[in-house]
Amino acid sequence: MLKDFDFNETRNPYAGFKRKELGERLARAQRLIKNLNIPVLIIVDGWESSGKGYVIKDLVRELNPKSYKVSVFETPTAEEEARPFLWRFWEKIPSKGNMAIFDRSFYFNLLNDLSIENGELQQGIEDISIIEKQLLDDNVIIIKFFLHQKEKTQQGRIDTLKNDVDKAFMVGERDEEQYKHYADYLEHFDEILEKSDFPFSKWHIVSTEEKKAASEKILGMSIDLIYEGIDRILGQKNGGIRYARNYIPSQKPLEKIDLGLTLTEEEYDKRKDALQLEAQRIAFQLYTKGIPTVLVFEGVDAAGKGGAIERLTREMDPRGYEVITTSAPNELEQQYHYLWRFYRNFPKKGDIKIFDRSWYGRVLVERVEGFATEKEWERAYEEINQMEAQLTKFGTLVIKFFLYIDKEEQLKRFKDRENEPDKVYKLTDEDWRNREKWDEYIDAMNEMLDRTSTPQAPWNIVSGMDKKYARINVLETFIEQATKKLNE
Amino acid sequence: MLKDFDFNETRNPYAGFKRKELGERLARAQRLIKNLNIPVLIIVDGWESSGKGYVIKDLVRELNPKSYKVSVFETPTAEEEARPFLWRFWEKIPSKGNMAIFDRSFYFNLLNDLSIENGELQQGIEDISIIEKQLLDDNVIIIKFFLHQKEKTQQGRIDTLKNDVDKAFMVGERDEEQYKHYADYLEHFDEILEKSDFPFSKWHIVSTEEKKAASEKILGMSIDLIYEGIDRILGQKNGGIRYARNYIPSQKPLEKIDLGLTLTEEEYDKRKDALQLEAQRIAFQLYTKGIPTVLVFEGVDAAGKGGAIERLTREMDPRGYEVITTSAPNELEQQYHYLWRFYRNFPKKGDIKIFDRSWYGRVLVERVEGFATEKEWERAYEEINQMEAQLTKFGTLVIKFFLYIDKEEQLKRFKDRENEPDKVYKLTDEDWRNREKWDEYIDAMNEMLDRTSTPQAPWNIVSGMDKKYARINVLETFIEQATKKLNE
Repeated sequence: MLKDFDFNETRNPYAGFKRKELGERLARAQRLIKNLNIPVLIIVDGWESSGKGYVIKDLVRELNPKSYKVSVFETPTAEEEARPFLWRFWEKIPSKGNMAIFDRSFYFNLLNDLSIENGELQQGIEDISIIEKQLLDDNVIIIKFFLHQKEKTQQGRIDTLKNDVDKAFMVGERDEEQYKHYADYLEHFDEILEKSDFPFSKWHIVSTEEKKAASEKILGMSIDLIYEGIDRILGQKNGGIRYARNYIPSQKPLEKIDLGLTLTEEEYDKRKDALQLEAQRIAFQLYTKGIPTVLVFEGVDAAGKGGAIERLTREMDPRGYEVITTSAPNELEQQYHYLWRFYRNFPKKGDIKIFDRSWYGRVLVERVEGFATEKEWERAYEEINQMEAQLTKFGTLVIKFFLYIDKEEQLKRFKDRENEPDKVYKLTDEDWRNREKWDEYIDAMNEMLDRTSTPQAPWNIVSGMDKKYARINVLETFIEQATKKLNE
Repeated sequence: MLKDFDFNETRNPYAGFKRKELGERLARAQRLIKNLNIPVLIIVDGWESSGKGYVIKDLVRELNPKSYKVSVFETPTAEEEARPFLWRFWEKIPSKGNMAIFDRSFYFNLLNDLSIENGELQQGIEDISIIEKQLLDDNVIIIKFFLHQKEKTQQGRIDTLKNDVDKAFMVGERDEEQYKHYADYLEHFDEILEKSDFPFSKWHIVSTEEKKAASEKILGMSIDLIYEGIDRILGQKNGGIRYARNYIPSQKPLEKIDLGLTLTEEEYDKRKDALQLEAQRIAFQLYTKGIPTVLVFEGVDAAGKGGAIERLTREMDPRGYEVITTSAPNELEQQYHYLWRFYRNFPKKGDIKIFDRSWYGRVLVERVEGFATEKEWERAYEEINQMEAQLTKFGTLVIKFFLYIDKEEQLKRFKDRENEPDKVYKLTDEDWRNREKWDEYIDAMNEMLDRTSTPQAPWNIVSGMDKKYARINVLETFIEQATKKLNE
């Protein structure tokens, strides 16, 4: 894409407009996306000293500052390095009706590593294609610009900076690198751009030989591509794309559980203390080895998630783990892709995050109660698998527990809760309502367990009929899978 | 505007786009207005042989034919001449989400009459400003183009047509006129365009010296002006414009009615027949004199509108009048300005249209029940006065009756209706519901009678407490006001 780029082809249909006119029209498009609640992400990437700052300044000049945000991505900080590489980008994705402008982007690591291995490059592009596709599916308009310049031009620009006492400091390591190895980077960039020129998210290569002209062209294209994006999104909303469920139930994991497993009081007491101390030791080792850990607890209401988490963490250092209780998304969270709030909470290296309910709400409560459309929750199975794959690829230990009790046992526990003053707060109208939809929930749970049990993040289904058994099982499973990870 | 037009100023910011690209972008804008339910009216007016057809062809080339309609306005037909001059344009205004393209427009009569008197010209422009303002207030995007050309160019174009055997027929009377009197028309057009370059609806003068360039410019401007219009409309919807009621109740006409007026059975019988025969004679005279007549009946539920209309028309020739019963607007009607369905039904010369309920529903039921926003019904008082003024200016006889009974009498009649098998169909749940809001309706009625009783179309408020009195009163009022009109 870069190698065969024709610097003489300078067609710019927006050349007739003054810069201010274009700015005002971009502001008008901004007001429209605000009205339509559509998020827009504009990525400005490219060579060093190619004028990214100049272009972004023009983009935002006439915009309403309340509705856009510019994020600059440099070499990741220690905080960022301690998390999967997409984490810092998820933090900054635009919310509904707002515009995010990225100065550099997801492509940063790939572009700046000339010696990256082929497999790693493929993997990086795969990861990026996933986030771009997920945002697109969530009706984000993504616009990707790459600022291109000739070797001579780049060198001239860097030389000018170097010779200016006040600006010399702006010439960094990457400038020097590209200055010396333009041809190598050209080859490298070209490969990455080719591979990431996805049909659903294309690159727009713009020559910045003339900065002002380039900037005006980018303004014009941004306006046009926003309207194009709106056209696509509204078209789809109005039935432009047909949608059909494509899941054929193959197995029902919940039917295979042995509900008869129990432990006696003595056995429980005998094993519990040792296991809790072992869990503490393991947690400490995960910390010292810098392994991030995600534990997920899902299950039928009143199956004993809370009790199991309590027993699991009893001896752990409270500074090393955090329990995150997931309820309905708040107003802010609703403005983003549904995975956004979970991405934000993922552990950095060495931390343990325990999710009491999780992103699986999308395919459970949101599905059954109709809070997500069928199209949305159907898509979620793949999105969740992709997200967990990203976590485990980064080295995160992911352990998922599903606690089950049958309908009769649930009724018994609900009634017990009603009658015990210190437990009655745990029982809500919602619990009773959910119970009325027992069969629908079981269907959704079976499908979830079937479709999201992956090699890297399998479900551990635990009978919760006997609380003692369940608690010991959770402790043992944690110890076993964490030990395996520690020995990798 | 035309006289100081600079044919050398040919700036066209859209010149960089290919015609097809512009067409596709207009189609995209068309899909957006469809989605947003916004109507668009594009007026293409201008000199004879200036390329209106060429321009319109380009405008529609890429559009979805389901969502636009081109209307050509030539010299009015006999059918059109028989109605107020705006009638034929109201017929063709765009419905929600659709685009109407007018080849010539409201300005036709004014532009083509060099010897029009100053007062008539002023009046015509005033009328046009009213329709443009009313459409604008109803969130129609109005775009007005005037195609301009030099005298030499026009003469050359007309000569070319004349010399072409196949096209010579296209040169009409108006072409010849303008050919001979370019300077006079330039002066005349200029005056009209100046006066109708309203702040809320500006003219866009485009030189068609180069037809292709002109056409591309118009395509580009149309796209831009549609987005500008959307921006304005969405901005207003979201509270961009503050709105406050500006009515201070000054009088309550309903409190001044003498409810004690009655007639004996004998008096009624004695006068009725003679009045009905007189009404028949009057109706025939209105017909022969070609006077269009509009009778409006409004009033409290069960006040006797239907009975009064029946007695009034008893002896009239059924081919000469039509009773139009107004109920809630249907789905089609809801897609237009609320006055549209009434404009369509206005009488041609010599016809009588009797409205059993009418456009006043906007400030009565739609106001009280909240079917129209406060902003909408507040605006309606002026819109209605303007519309009735247009009717009377055209020579239409407008007589408005308001029949009133008090709350007690209404209850009595409702109960009577309940108990009589042949009347019970006249009583609906809605009547009972309206009755619950008696005070609100009375407030709305008082305001309506106060604000829409104009010199040209005053309200006749009739006590309906005694049906006989009311019927005779309606007959007498009709005869009196029609006689006055016939003697004008």
